[in-house]
Amino acid sequence: MIDKKKLMHDLNQVREKSPLVHNITNYVVMNNTANALLAIGASPVMAHAINEVEEMVAIASSLVINIGTLSDDWVNAMLLAGKAANKKGIPVILDPVGAGATTYRTKTCLLIIDECKPSVIRGNASEIMALVNSQSQTKGVDSIASSDSAIDAAKSLAKKTGAIVVISGPTDYITDGDRIAEVKNGSVMMTKVTGLGCTATSLIGAFTAINSNFFEAATHGMAIMGIAGELAAGKSRGTGTMQLHFLDELYKMSDKKIVEHLKS
Amino acid sequence: MIDKKKLMHDLNQVREKSPLVHNITNYVVMNNTANALLAIGASPVMAHAINEVEEMVAIASSLVINIGTLSDDWVNAMLLAGKAANKKGIPVILDPVGAGATTYRTKTCLLIIDECKPSVIRGNASEIMALVNSQSQTKGVDSIASSDSAIDAAKSLAKKTGAIVVISGPTDYITDGDRIAEVKNGSVMMTKVTGLGCTATSLIGAFTAINSNFFEAATHGMAIMGIAGELAAGKSRGTGTMQLHFLDELYKMSDKKIVEHLKS
Amino acid sequence: MIDKKKLMHDLNQVREKSPLVHNITNYVVMNNTANALLAIGASPVMAHAINEVEEMVAIASSLVINIGTLSDDWVNAMLLAGKAANKKGIPVILDPVGAGATTYRTKTCLLIIDECKPSVIRGNASEIMALVNSQSQTKGVDSIASSDSAIDAAKSLAKKTGAIVVISGPTDYITDGDRIAEVKNGSVMMTKVTGLGCTATSLIGAFTAINSNFFEAATHGMAIMGIAGELAAGKSRGTGTMQLHFLDELYKMSDKKIVEHLKS
Repeated sequence: MIDKKKLMHDLNQVREKSPLVHNITNYVVMNNTANALLAIGASPVMAHAINEVEEMVAIASSLVINIGTLSDDWVNAMLLAGKAANKKGIPVILDPVGAGATTYRTKTCLLIIDECKPSVIRGNASEIMALVNSQSQTKGVDSIASSDSAIDAAKSLAKKTGAIVVISGPTDYITDGDRIAEVKNGSVMMTKVTGLGCTATSLIGAFTAINSNFFEAATHGMAIMGIAGELAAGKSRGTGTMQLHFLDELYKMSDKKIVEHLKS
Repeated sequence: MIDKKKLMHDLNQVREKSPLVHNITNYVVMNNTANALLAIGASPVMAHAINEVEEMVAIASSLVINIGTLSDDWVNAMLLAGKAANKKGIPVILDPVGAGATTYRTKTCLLIIDECKPSVIRGNASEIMALVNSQSQTKGVDSIASSDSAIDAAKSLAKKTGAIVVISGPTDYITDGDRIAEVKNGSVMMTKVTGLGCTATSLIGAFTAINSNFFEAATHGMAIMGIAGELAAGKSRGTGTMQLHFLDELYKMSDKKIVEHLKS
Repeated sequence: MIDKKKLMHDLNQVREKSPLVHNITNYVVMNNTANALLAIGASPVMAHAINEVEEMVAIASSLVINIGTLSDDWVNAMLLAGKAANKKGIPVILDPVGAGATTYRTKTCLLIIDECKPSVIRGNASEIMALVNSQSQTKGVDSIASSDSAIDAAKSLAKKTGAIVVISGPTDYITDGDRIAEVKNGSVMMTKVTGLGCTATSLIGAFTAINSNFFEAATHGMAIMGIAGELAAGKSRGTGTMQLHFLDELYKMSDKKIVEHLKS
């Protein structure tokens, strides 16, 4: 059950405060992520050099770490930035893209969790399961498990790490280990556009920057994602136009749309 | 003469099997390539770290190597991944972006051909000619030669390497050194959108993943590309909307559209 | 006061000569930049490897250096390419993305200015001020200063470096240290799409490639940017569709549109 008033309040806070969200993310989605953050009213910055990540974190309101196209130099920068964020007390959001697909991805995620203490971890079902059970498998970066089947893993991961854990899927689940919130908005077409999961993670970054109740913030990020995706899919002939309508919907998101379209 | 029944069959196979296509490609096009693969029904993954490319190849059904924004670390990963693909017996598809523009590009392509034994090589006329005659020149990454003028070079490259060679252009030519297939669909507007050549290469990657007759698979990839591009251009005011309509057309590609629009 | 005849002439020159613009730019915008250059009629190439930048510069007509996602390897390539461009006598255009946000960004820009003698520097107000007064601050990559407030800094930077300095904003200012040209076209929606500033810098790269009067060339690049942005915003529901309409408008830019829409 999502509180619409709180969701509207947070959306307006993002627009009013325009928090600086520092992203260390993958090459595939950087452009979309930056545009989604701008559309919702936040201020994105992408910076990954060892030489500057700590200084960039120092002026940011949240840090998003996404391992989609990781390599050693980038992982080093992620760790450095994550620790700086911890020290400063701003939230770290982790997107474990492709965890389970290769040992390198799984291990890197576990290292980041260990050293950077993320406030929120968002992945698809396969990825969340891979972080709990190293025997679990994914197919590249797409999920092969249903989101329901990952709920136990998500709860266990949340309890173990102290992070809010989010599973994206037909229904999104958000848990702190005990409570579970559900977001039922969305469209299957969203799985056919690359990087919308990564966008969700960065929107959570924007909401955690203005709401220190991270369970609420994560839920609100996913709710805005779901409403925008659902409205965009309804206007789109295919996955090309979908991308643009999605950004338009984020840009035009309003109290009225929340009231009319949020399922809960 | 393209067999429409076989083309439809392969399209349906891609959608049904959703093969994992591992791309080591350039920064400019990663997003478009991933979206095109998703739109046609394949499952893309982008991964380039030395630490994981072999493991990623192990779960993939084909490997696409595109040198568009190459540097030494990436070339090392390409070679490693290519050899792993050979060992596993999955096809390697090479896109020699900008071969002929710099010595580094030409040499890297020849090295990849030598060490990774690509099943298909797709480039524009200038690029294909540069791989055969090192005196030949390109203008950056755009072709300055007509596709017809590169047919002899393509045949010779195919014979020498054992790869199917594809020349993109107003008419696309696909050759195994003896036979030549032609794809006459397309639109000149496609040359004004960055990375559609790279997309073609990745679509070939999807088709080779489900059809081990690589001459057919390459022809089918180019045919789907040409039909989608032609239909998209017909709906577009310019190269911006063109990109989105192109993805929509891939997403909506159907037996009916193939029957109605394939020129041969 | 922009001379419409000269602007039309330069636009037609870009289309006729299709100059090769070599970009060493950031991951976020590479795709958009390449598409904008193609849409206006230029020929973009992206290449950043130490192994090839000098050879690529040798066939290019201008070099655009954009530090948006800088790291040491890339900075080394920028310096190498910039010196090669100086030696060859082609213009270097600098985009100091995020100067002022971190010491690394500010220092790198000053180093590039020192070693590569840019012909044009284009930034937002905060960035231009940071290059003159190291105490000045930016918020990530977005400007927190008004463009008017940066005019003195721009003049001073132009006098000190010999470069034409461009401040993007509601009104764009272009100065050689004495004269100031103004571009009044544009839309506030342009600030909500990532990388349109970077696109402006690359368009200036295209115009400097065909007009050795860099004050005019920079003004013309900004004028085309402003007209296309304004027309696109008028057709767009949000920042998603805005991006596509913007490319369409560049592609359809004409003498007639210049006559009807240029404000001056």
